[in-house]
Amino acid sequence: MIRQQEPSLAHVEPLGREEVLATYLIETPLAPERAAGVMAGEQSTGTFTAVPGETETLRSRHGARIVSVKPLGTVDAPSLPGAIRPTSSPFSGGGYNRAEVVLAFPTHNFGPSLPNLLSAVAGNLYELQEFSGLRLMDLEFSSSFTSVYTGPRFGIEGTRRLAGVEGRPLIGTIIKPSIGLSIDELRVMVRDLADAGVDFIKDDELNANPPFAPLEQRAQAVMEELERAADRNGKKVMYAFNITGDIEEMKRNHDHVVRAKGTCVMVSINSIGFTGLAYVNRFSEVPIHGHRNQFGYMTRSPLLGIDGMAYQKLCRLAGADHLHVNGLNSKFYESNESVIRSAQGCLTPMLGESGYLTMPVLSSGQSALTAGPTYRALQTTDVIHLAGGGILAHPGGTAAGVESMKLAWEAALADVPLETYAGEHASLQQAIDKFGGNHGKK
Amino acid sequence: MIRQQEPSLAHVEPLGREEVLATYLIETPLAPERAAGVMAGEQSTGTFTAVPGETETLRSRHGARIVSVKPLGTVDAPSLPGAIRPTSSPFSGGGYNRAEVVLAFPTHNFGPSLPNLLSAVAGNLYELQEFSGLRLMDLEFSSSFTSVYTGPRFGIEGTRRLAGVEGRPLIGTIIKPSIGLSIDELRVMVRDLADAGVDFIKDDELNANPPFAPLEQRAQAVMEELERAADRNGKKVMYAFNITGDIEEMKRNHDHVVRAKGTCVMVSINSIGFTGLAYVNRFSEVPIHGHRNQFGYMTRSPLLGIDGMAYQKLCRLAGADHLHVNGLNSKFYESNESVIRSAQGCLTPMLGESGYLTMPVLSSGQSALTAGPTYRALQTTDVIHLAGGGILAHPGGTAAGVESMKLAWEAALADVPLETYAGEHASLQQAIDKFGGNHGKK
Repeated sequence: MIRQQEPSLAHVEPLGREEVLATYLIETPLAPERAAGVMAGEQSTGTFTAVPGETETLRSRHGARIVSVKPLGTVDAPSLPGAIRPTSSPFSGGGYNRAEVVLAFPTHNFGPSLPNLLSAVAGNLYELQEFSGLRLMDLEFSSSFTSVYTGPRFGIEGTRRLAGVEGRPLIGTIIKPSIGLSIDELRVMVRDLADAGVDFIKDDELNANPPFAPLEQRAQAVMEELERAADRNGKKVMYAFNITGDIEEMKRNHDHVVRAKGTCVMVSINSIGFTGLAYVNRFSEVPIHGHRNQFGYMTRSPLLGIDGMAYQKLCRLAGADHLHVNGLNSKFYESNESVIRSAQGCLTPMLGESGYLTMPVLSSGQSALTAGPTYRALQTTDVIHLAGGGILAHPGGTAAGVESMKLAWEAALADVPLETYAGEHASLQQAIDKFGGNHGKK
Repeated sequence: MIRQQEPSLAHVEPLGREEVLATYLIETPLAPERAAGVMAGEQSTGTFTAVPGETETLRSRHGARIVSVKPLGTVDAPSLPGAIRPTSSPFSGGGYNRAEVVLAFPTHNFGPSLPNLLSAVAGNLYELQEFSGLRLMDLEFSSSFTSVYTGPRFGIEGTRRLAGVEGRPLIGTIIKPSIGLSIDELRVMVRDLADAGVDFIKDDELNANPPFAPLEQRAQAVMEELERAADRNGKKVMYAFNITGDIEEMKRNHDHVVRAKGTCVMVSINSIGFTGLAYVNRFSEVPIHGHRNQFGYMTRSPLLGIDGMAYQKLCRLAGADHLHVNGLNSKFYESNESVIRSAQGCLTPMLGESGYLTMPVLSSGQSALTAGPTYRALQTTDVIHLAGGGILAHPGGTAAGVESMKLAWEAALADVPLETYAGEHASLQQAIDKFGGNHGKK
């Protein structure tokens, strides 16, 4: 398990000023120090022209402070359109300068408010002509945020307790087809999956509360099946019901799930915002499974948006008990290195005693073949490992699919090569034969 | 005024299937038709490998439908990292193919639910390796959305009525410095601005409910000043109080504003999500001023994210009465053409009788000099025109600043060159002298 406290950013708060630190990757036609000044001014006390009232006192109380500027070289072409052109002055160097900039924002500018923090640390920065690239890389929240956002209420321990799984990852799957199953078809699938030995099932993010299979009825039917399966098998499968919806609807949806004795709810974080997540966190009686769909638009352009490191911290502050981080060798663009960094982030304590730990969810194109590489990279079993096709399309059926995932983790934990282990286990060999050729990934 | 119904996208709904249309700009190493198939599958019934249960019947009921694919040429280098490489097969052509793709999503997959619509039309699309570029350009909502989202409650007419301004734009300004004024300092500034003749004042997006000047007290003080100014001047200035906050807090903040007799609330839409906006829309007794900060991260990379056209429709559906669209010759990267397109979008009817019209807010680096170009481009006065420095830093003082803005619109409406009009009006000449050299913009 990864439990060491994260290394603090270089950080000395001026006396009596609580601050949030934000780290950026920038690209600018200006000298990096000057660009950092523009960022600090725009996001605290300044505007495009001097106005009366921006006194020295006001600026020292409320201005954002430049903590550090670390040059990272110069490129000839701008990464994003719309920036001013570099001049050939000796200060700018005639190209686009990259740098890591750390700014400190006084917490009293926004109070411990996640939505208003976003307006400060992100806000209009992405639109400034002084930048041809700007990406929020990391955040260090100040302590008063803990008074408003108490973090995941269940986290790893609570999830393991409710799912009844210790010493290995939760092995799970996603209901497929993503959308369109009738409630009776869903019953059959859930029953089969429970009997096949999964620990965890989730709705697809495309399936929430559609008119043809309302969440209330779905929760009722699914939990009936899972309770009966628990009587048969001695273990109650955790099912993440997608309660994503409008604000008042999410409370109702949550209540339907809890009334049906469900043990997990899921939200599409970017559909409801961090405030929506924080709202659900305040009342949720079960762990919140945080789905990250749409994150691509804020992160795929390398010099724009929000990096996975800052993103996972925002999700944890808002109270996600589980967080999707893609998976190794996934069908998505993200590099394995980036996936691992996000997963490690979720498991690295921040703020106060509890550490705000969130259980990372590895998914997308997963199968028995990705268990070993995942364990070797993370050195922990505190993950939820989801395989859709990797379980449902296993040639031996779903039970064999689940078994192959568990065996692959067993092999990884015992440090036995997968192929060796497969010699004794048919389901593992079938997985290798079926899914071994699927992936060729960076 | 722009009032013609927007041209409908090529669109024939299959019998009995209500659909939402989504238009994308894509760049892909695959043949565009094949790429469109991947999009449609991923965002409805499919996964990376065939699974049992994805029957033809299910697919025809729930599958997304490809409406059109329009090739837009081929480029050699991918716009975004992480895409698979093009093969030299005659279908892909060996480069990265750009195309406009229109998909139709069955509304019954998500119901009339804005957050769940986002998971479908945006969702995981941005992450697929099959794309080196993907941007959501436009949306056409289906009629059942009107039953849940009734749109702006005040819009242009309601705003004009409350602000008491007809026949010209609302001329407004932003409290500067953005952050840090004490409530007593704010009182003085608001009093001066009201006496200077502004129609509209807004909080900066950085200033919401900070501990050093809580919103409740700010609203009380500001509205006292504005009521007294109304007694003196016969007109009550509209003030947009920034109520951005956590979900329950926004209701409380709204109530503070209404109790103080305020006539407008403001939210940072991307801080609270479209669901947060829709939530405020349900109870707000005054117009909602929608601030778009952070939009840059979802739109500045040209082949990624969400275009201003789709974005403004989402904001209007969720109920923004006003929407920021940047301004001409602003300090931001956005081209004037793009600003105009967004503003026109807000004023172009969609869905049902009301048209869901939202008053566009032009701001950022604005002054008397941008009035004429704005009117000539938009041919309407149904806008809120905000100048921060352009009013507060006017050499003749704030009253002269406001006057110069009104005069510039007068000149534009009368089709008189600004310089000619300035001959008779000192405040206009001062604005030209001070701000004329500030901008050189695409």
